[in-house]
Amino acid sequence: MTNSDFEPLNPGDTIGIIGGGQLGRMLAMAAAKLGLKTIILEPGKDCPASEVAVQTICAPYDDPAALKELVKSCKVITWEFENIPLDAVNFLKENTLLRPNPLALEKSQDRLTEKQFINDLGIATAPYYRVDTIEDIKQGLDRFGSDAILKTRRFGYDGKGQSRLSKQAKSADISAAFDALGRNPSILEGFVTFSREISIIVGRSTNGDIRCYDPAENAHTNGILHTSTLPANITPETRNAAVRIAEKIVTALDYIGVMGVEFFVTPTGDLIVNEIAPRVHNSGHWTEAACAASQFEQHVRAVSGWPLADPTRHSDCVMENLIGDDVNKMPQLLTLPDVSIHLYGKAESRAGRKMGHFTQLSS
Amino acid sequence: MTNSDFEPLNPGDTIGIIGGGQLGRMLAMAAAKLGLKTIILEPGKDCPASEVAVQTICAPYDDPAALKELVKSCKVITWEFENIPLDAVNFLKENTLLRPNPLALEKSQDRLTEKQFINDLGIATAPYYRVDTIEDIKQGLDRFGSDAILKTRRFGYDGKGQSRLSKQAKSADISAAFDALGRNPSILEGFVTFSREISIIVGRSTNGDIRCYDPAENAHTNGILHTSTLPANITPETRNAAVRIAEKIVTALDYIGVMGVEFFVTPTGDLIVNEIAPRVHNSGHWTEAACAASQFEQHVRAVSGWPLADPTRHSDCVMENLIGDDVNKMPQLLTLPDVSIHLYGKAESRAGRKMGHFTQLSS
Repeated sequence: MTNSDFEPLNPGDTIGIIGGGQLGRMLAMAAAKLGLKTIILEPGKDCPASEVAVQTICAPYDDPAALKELVKSCKVITWEFENIPLDAVNFLKENTLLRPNPLALEKSQDRLTEKQFINDLGIATAPYYRVDTIEDIKQGLDRFGSDAILKTRRFGYDGKGQSRLSKQAKSADISAAFDALGRNPSILEGFVTFSREISIIVGRSTNGDIRCYDPAENAHTNGILHTSTLPANITPETRNAAVRIAEKIVTALDYIGVMGVEFFVTPTGDLIVNEIAPRVHNSGHWTEAACAASQFEQHVRAVSGWPLADPTRHSDCVMENLIGDDVNKMPQLLTLPDVSIHLYGKAESRAGRKMGHFTQLSS
Repeated sequence: MTNSDFEPLNPGDTIGIIGGGQLGRMLAMAAAKLGLKTIILEPGKDCPASEVAVQTICAPYDDPAALKELVKSCKVITWEFENIPLDAVNFLKENTLLRPNPLALEKSQDRLTEKQFINDLGIATAPYYRVDTIEDIKQGLDRFGSDAILKTRRFGYDGKGQSRLSKQAKSADISAAFDALGRNPSILEGFVTFSREISIIVGRSTNGDIRCYDPAENAHTNGILHTSTLPANITPETRNAAVRIAEKIVTALDYIGVMGVEFFVTPTGDLIVNEIAPRVHNSGHWTEAACAASQFEQHVRAVSGWPLADPTRHSDCVMENLIGDDVNKMPQLLTLPDVSIHLYGKAESRAGRKMGHFTQLSS
């Protein structure tokens, strides 16, 4: 169905969310704050979002009966993660209002397609080389003349599905790296020299309005976001360039909702898009503590056909993820002033698992 | 049971909340943000809190089976409103950890007991006169020599259960006023001349720490809170005096949790306590938008045996209630910058019904 078939939602209406992790949980809470109901579709039992949603349908993402039930009960359906099975996407596209535009899923589910799409907009990415065979990897390394990262084209996140390769990598190393990715279709990304990593959380509404939160400066540990700091240590020119790129991407996709765009900032201040995430994004969690309306509210407003919120930041801040046993810092965090804590209700803390985050405000 | 029998809660533990209105809803959301679960006890179907709680027990507040289930499933039980049947309070007091101290309910459920308790602490209230008969009302009016308000001792809120009486009221008026209150035990309150109304949201933790949010200046319409403005237009001396009074009250009650204390400020800057509310309070809703931790989080922290949050305000603000059809302003509110909107998920808007609120931030 097309967007023009639909009126904006009213308070009391229901939004379907595909995926019941912490992003779904925070979307559900933001929807509740605006008087909207949510139904979660998630195969995992006792998922984080189920605790704050009106209903949870516990079934695979592509379960036909579950999808039908979701369509029947919801005015609009959105998602918290991009790796939704294409069968489900196609069913929803045909039978209900699915927002954002699923074209964004098509582009972002495959690293190769994503990079081609971004380059086609005249926006820089890391150099990349399509990999189907061992030979492709060798050719790519030769071409770049630099260290590189081998990444699966699909289903990678938080540094998973990746292997680093030296430019002098031997055949055995190359073979082992490709084996580690199951010899799945991959891309080789040439190493980019960068000064810092930033991201923009951009929202676009049904009427084409676009609002960007201030860029966050991000630090990663073991491939997982560790901190997002506001303001980022960048020039106004770099900031404006990042905003223009984010605007260009959401416009090209006729996107409705919130998207995270990750950038490398080169030593000369140029921007290279690392990745786009067609959903609310970990590097935007600070918005809940430092803005009148969070990225989660912004996404809910957009998919509801409502006006976007003002993304102005009232405070500087640092958001820090609580990964695995970091959550044991909770008693100490509770004693700190000007800190907003957010836990995700996950029973078991495992290495690398995102258990929560906190945002330290400053003036 | 006593507080010393209990360890602080851990993330993942469950809090029981008696009452499923908007205050219960916002308590449940604050608990979820801290990784805690909530179970609501509420006789009304489809109550606002049920949409964001893990479970809702739909039964009368004093239903024995429901109370037993709540006790079994929860580490601590608290409430969103003070008019809990005493049988339920007594059962919970005997069988689980009930926070705040139910002594606060005993004092605040009866306007006469409440005023005596406050006066006994050396704190001023409006002059009052106990009313059991028509004759008592006449004697009270004579004694005050001013207009007065007749209020039922129990179960009044938002201006309900009240009648204003002129100092020259005739017997017929007096009789009609008492009839309107069902001739229930009442008090007559002498009119107080005041310049403004303020309130303090005070929190007290298990270790006796006390934190007060900044006083809000409140404006009422038809007996219902309309706006709370921060900062209040009061001197630092009045502010400090209000804080000291709030501290004295929660200490005397060995109170654990958040309480709202409403004051009249006289033209000479003196303070008169109007009312105490042993729970989160409408005049504290601004804290959600203008502080790192809201009054709801503060209450959850306190009853969980956790340290209190820093109540520092990062922004000035005005909170405005959306009463009845005010909620139709929603489309316009969504277009305003620096506004945090909070709706309660109530399906039907009725005159005088609190449907939501919004907080306009300024720097």
